Amino acid sequence: MTLPPLTLVLGGARSGKSRHAERLVEAVPGPWTYIATAQAFDGEMRDRIALHRQRRGAGWSTVDAPLDLAGALFAAPPGGAVLVDCLTLWLTNVMLAERDPAAESLALVAACRAAPGPLVLVGNEVGLGIVPDNALARRFRDAAGRLHQDLAAAADRVVFMVAGLPMQVK
Amino acid sequence: MTLPPLTLVLGGARSGKSRHAERLVEAVPGPWTYIATAQAFDGEMRDRIALHRQRRGAGWSTVDAPLDLAGALFAAPPGGAVLVDCLTLWLTNVMLAERDPAAESLALVAACRAAPGPLVLVGNEVGLGIVPDNALARRFRDAAGRLHQDLAAAADRVVFMVAGLPMQVK
Amino acid sequence: MTLPPLTLVLGGARSGKSRHAERLVEAVPGPWTYIATAQAFDGEMRDRIALHRQRRGAGWSTVDAPLDLAGALFAAPPGGAVLVDCLTLWLTNVMLAERDPAAESLALVAACRAAPGPLVLVGNEVGLGIVPDNALARRFRDAAGRLHQDLAAAADRVVFMVAGLPMQVK
Repeated sequence: MTLPPLTLVLGGARSGKSRHAERLVEAVPGPWTYIATAQAFDGEMRDRIALHRQRRGAGWSTVDAPLDLAGALFAAPPGGAVLVDCLTLWLTNVMLAERDPAAESLALVAACRAAPGPLVLVGNEVGLGIVPDNALARRFRDAAGRLHQDLAAAADRVVFMVAGLPMQVK
Repeated sequence: MTLPPLTLVLGGARSGKSRHAERLVEAVPGPWTYIATAQAFDGEMRDRIALHRQRRGAGWSTVDAPLDLAGALFAAPPGGAVLVDCLTLWLTNVMLAERDPAAESLALVAACRAAPGPLVLVGNEVGLGIVPDNALARRFRDAAGRLHQDLAAAADRVVFMVAGLPMQVK
Repeated sequence: MTLPPLTLVLGGARSGKSRHAERLVEAVPGPWTYIATAQAFDGEMRDRIALHRQRRGAGWSTVDAPLDLAGALFAAPPGGAVLVDCLTLWLTNVMLAERDPAAESLALVAACRAAPGPLVLVGNEVGLGIVPDNALARRFRDAAGRLHQDLAAAADRVVFMVAGLPMQVK
């Protein structure tokens, strides 16, 4: 199996996005680069990061890029497959750092289009619940939705995960 | 391309519902009527309305129908395509006005079935998050889900938007 | 039409999951067993239970299993079709009873695999909204997502309901 230049894996919490994305990458020859956007602010997050890292096992090199995701994409080994996990935490970090999510998203989409090897992006779908009470959550939801739309337009393949199973959207 | 009598476009926040619905309508000859259900209570909403209106451009006539959506459907130019954006705000308005959402929904479904030209309805899927804490949000979620089910049963085509891409459900 | 050994019906609130699952079961010869996991803590829930029971009509026998779902599965008439409605309330009950959701889920998946007749499971998708504020809701969301993934892996058929319409995922 081959990977197209750009794949977007969307889905809800615990829908098996990361695992599916890892399998897509592991189906092609290495090197495999895992770009992690998570920041371990608390124990809950630290546990989750450790669990993901343990599951991936050997063959992966891991790069932390909580904010400079575009830079990490350019620095990845040319021709090797890259997994970004995940867009949602990156966007959270961008907003917490009080950077402009629209400008950062635009730059990220450009970097994804220019990536030197096959790229798989993981993102959380967060817009299918009741409108959140607080304005920051609404702004985040808007920014995430727009980023996903722009990336989906650029992507060769888009899947929506349901209970660990991929539904092909594009 | 032709439009069937009744199309329902569902999806989460910022999933590209409005844009997709506009394209469906603009693919058939005019006149095109845009029935807006939004009420500009605050600046956030005013900005969003202005943005949508600007994107639509020429060729559209806009009708405001925050509550009497059935009336606006009957008043649209016969044979012309009509877009309703969106069901969710209309239902919010109905509940804020303390009208009965079940009765109003029933009347709306009947009006949609009797519409004189192709009709495209946009609605927010809001039932895929954690159960909301407050009872009003739960009642809203129930009413929206029932309305969507009734309209989907009546519709010729139903799409579920993911990141700007339509998944055909019916 | 025949029912495969294990069917999983997922979807949001008011997406028509229960009704779809009932129809799947009623399409095969009886006996039909309805395993209800709901506990009528309040009037809202009592009304919902009564409504569902009324809709199902004759031909069904109902078993209440708020916690011991695996036991109820083993006790169902051999060869008869069984509907479990729903996994989400069962998992809520497990967590409220301070049992371990991971261990209970594992046992449930084993029981579903060993069920003596066709089995249809209904579950709420709750992971597609904004990350909940409170830690219990996040833990619940995680546990539900994992349970759904494990059951979906074991299932012969998985459907995701949108506005009363089934999208086949597996």
